[in-house]
Order: sequence, then structure tokens, then C-alpha cells
Amino acid sequence: MTASIDQNTPLTMRPKWNADGLLPAIAQDARTGEVLMMAWMNEESLALTLEKKQAIYWSRSRQALWRKGESSGNVQTLIDARLDCDGDTLLLRVDQEGSGACHTGRRTCFFYTPMSGEWQLEEEQHA
Amino acid sequence: MTASIDQNTPLTMRPKWNADGLLPAIAQDARTGEVLMMAWMNEESLALTLEKKQAIYWSRSRQALWRKGESSGNVQTLIDARLDCDGDTLLLRVDQEGSGACHTGRRTCFFYTPMSGEWQLEEEQHA
Repeated sequence: MTASIDQNTPLTMRPKWNADGLLPAIAQDARTGEVLMMAWMNEESLALTLEKKQAIYWSRSRQALWRKGESSGNVQTLIDARLDCDGDTLLLRVDQEGSGACHTGRRTCFFYTPMSGEWQLEEEQHA
Repeated sequence: MTASIDQNTPLTMRPKWNADGLLPAIAQDARTGEVLMMAWMNEESLALTLEKKQAIYWSRSRQALWRKGESSGNVQTLIDARLDCDGDTLLLRVDQEGSGACHTGRRTCFFYTPMSGEWQLEEEQHA
């Protein structure tokens, strides 16, 4: 079952923006490997992120650029960026400043865990 | 700038399906922390994933359940799952069987890197 690497993989890839002109961008802590959050980028926010070496997303609710950490101080310094094999998802490895990525003050946004048929706040499991 | 954790975070969260009834699901190698891929799930595929302890996505192109690894053998055994703070993204930590997650035979789908204004195949950088 060991597949060999496809030698026909295109040498370059273009971002494939969705119908709203956006791509999902996953932010991963470059040091610990922890997945911190997922947000969206449009062409402008991606270009700015690569230029400024700082994560700048597109806020779908505000329909505006979202300079991560601008108000909270929880800036994400870009270490490196990857586009995936079909060009429709970004992975950002970042240096997460401050307390964390999540608006709730947690390090990561991923903290609901499936238990007894619902998604429960992780910390409450051991209560 | 050290924010404290918001004590008002809801104790439970429901998946917030998008207009197409889908959520993005990030697959991370539970052992190495490597982010492997991002794909989509509908309610049925998420329920099956949790029940079978095996990643089962929703193929948007085929409009059908996509039992990851069914043809390639590159099955993803579910170690744990998390839903994010606003219920619109999933993180799956998986045990990746076989050669990897990517249809090109690579371990991860994230292998295009920004260079000279375009996204280039990572391996080709050092050529």
C-alpha cells in the first residue's frame, strides 16, 4: 500500500479562491505544533500577510481586513506559509504572541470535545 | 496584555453548518503534530467519523461520502476530535495509515511555498 510520490504534481500552484473570493487559513503554532485557529483570507489579506510577516485575515462578519491581535495584542508573526495540493487551503505556521489565539483567552480555539452526544467544553470534562 | 480566560464561554457548542450544510475539518497527525489536510464534513460524515473512529469526509466534487483511504489504504484512524469556539471548524487528530494523506503520495497536502511571487512545489526549491 506504499504509494510512490506522483512525479506529475504541478511545479507551481495558484490560490483557488472560493465563490466569495476567500480561502480558509489554518494557523499552527510553529513551536509546539498546536493548531490554534482557522480563519479566512482574501487576496489582499494573503498578500499583506506575506509582505508584513504577520497574520492578517478577512473578517466575514465585518467584511473588512482583520489584523489579528490589533486590539488584543495577540499578534501572529508568520514563520512560513504553505498552500495545499489543490490550492484551496492555506497553512500558516506562526509565532503566537500574548495569551493565545482565541477570543476567549485560550491558547487554541479548538476546545469542545464530543461527549455523551454533545460537544462539551474541554475543561468541564473532569469536573 | 495577558488576557484571562473568559468564564462565560458556553459549556456546550453545536456545529454551525454552512449554507451547504458543511464544516471544514482539519486533519492533524496525532503523533507528529503535522497538519495533513483539510476537507469537508456534513452532519452524516461527522456522525460516522465519531462512531467508526475513522475519518469520513464529504466530497464536494462527488457529492458523496468520502471514506478516506477506502481505495488508497491511507485510512485515518480518529484519535480525538475538537470543535472550535464558534462551532464552525473541526480539528481531527488522527493516526495516518499508509504513505500519507495526500493524493499525490505525499505525507501532507501542504507543500507549496511562496517564492518569487508564486507558490512553488517545496521539493523544487533546492533543485
